[in-house]
Amino acid sequence: MKKQRKVKVAVLVSGGGTNLQAIIDAVAAKVIKNAEISLVISNNASAYALTRAENAGIKTAIITKKESDGSQELFEDRLIERLKNDEIELIVLAGFMSILSERFTKTFERRIINVHPSLIPSFCGKGFYGLHVHEAALAYGVKVTGATVHFVNEIPDGGEIILQKSVSVKKGETPESLQQRVMRQAEWIILPRAVELVSKEIIANRKVSK
Amino acid sequence: MKKQRKVKVAVLVSGGGTNLQAIIDAVAAKVIKNAEISLVISNNASAYALTRAENAGIKTAIITKKESDGSQELFEDRLIERLKNDEIELIVLAGFMSILSERFTKTFERRIINVHPSLIPSFCGKGFYGLHVHEAALAYGVKVTGATVHFVNEIPDGGEIILQKSVSVKKGETPESLQQRVMRQAEWIILPRAVELVSKEIIANRKVSK
Repeated sequence: MKKQRKVKVAVLVSGGGTNLQAIIDAVAAKVIKNAEISLVISNNASAYALTRAENAGIKTAIITKKESDGSQELFEDRLIERLKNDEIELIVLAGFMSILSERFTKTFERRIINVHPSLIPSFCGKGFYGLHVHEAALAYGVKVTGATVHFVNEIPDGGEIILQKSVSVKKGETPESLQQRVMRQAEWIILPRAVELVSKEIIANRKVSK
Repeated sequence: MKKQRKVKVAVLVSGGGTNLQAIIDAVAAKVIKNAEISLVISNNASAYALTRAENAGIKTAIITKKESDGSQELFEDRLIERLKNDEIELIVLAGFMSILSERFTKTFERRIINVHPSLIPSFCGKGFYGLHVHEAALAYGVKVTGATVHFVNEIPDGGEIILQKSVSVKKGETPESLQQRVMRQAEWIILPRAVELVSKEIIANRKVSK
């Protein structure tokens, strides 16, 4: 059997890029074997994630809504154009702070994945992002939370679930401490695994469609 | 320090009584040290749970809505009377198939606990009971589910969470197989632990209020 070329992944970022780093590390550690990070796109020119990408020798691009005259449509047009030009097969949202339109998600159906810091369907959907997810979980008083990697469709956090991992809530936990533990114990583990899982699927489908 | 008398627990059942058995076994294994099962009440005269109670030498009572002229109010009056007469301090709902009124739950505030076969707030509330919880979880496609022990208040599955435990969903899982694993790996573990935890709290509060 001929060795299949690796799936070309683009990681979309806005900030520190810890989830990007988890993917970079997983490629180095061969947890991810069937994919390569071809491109990192940031919608924020000063995102530290860009430095992480450069340090790992990964091509970067800055595409902002501001430079698209504030138009989400133009912004997404530019994103789509770049992703298609680079023949990207899998898009990973890694702390990407922009809600993508249905047109965008339909263009890359089952080819966009996102990590959310809760066990969906708990504490997800519109308004639940970042630290607020953990604040809501602590306010509710849950003893178990976690993270979810899911396909992205037009419904916020509504796409098919790929992987989930639970994390116990400790006594005296703050939203900040919980956020850190959910990242370390769940997000950074399941996001790379999901990249590998979906990449294998993409390769398998390539064979079928030829 | 004088040894405190154990907390008197009543377990309310309707069916097979596997959760009752888990509590009986936990008392025998000294997982529960600060409580004793004083009474098992069934709202169904033919519940196998009654046999389990008798086999363990526990006092039983049958109180049905039918014998209360079909009136929920009369039925609950009789339950309350019996629970008070027996000086019950903690009520455990273990597969008890009757929704209790706010009057009932307020009478025993923070003294009624229930086990629900999901990680609340997922798949809980009105309409989510028994096998349907697991059907809903599988239909949603979650990869992690579990069980929750919570205090019972007037909102279905809305009371404060005491303990939760996660269970991974396996490939090819059916609602029945998932129900079995959630019972074995979560419900039967956290329900006895919660009985012990709440009983300790009740004993501590006794000391304070004297």
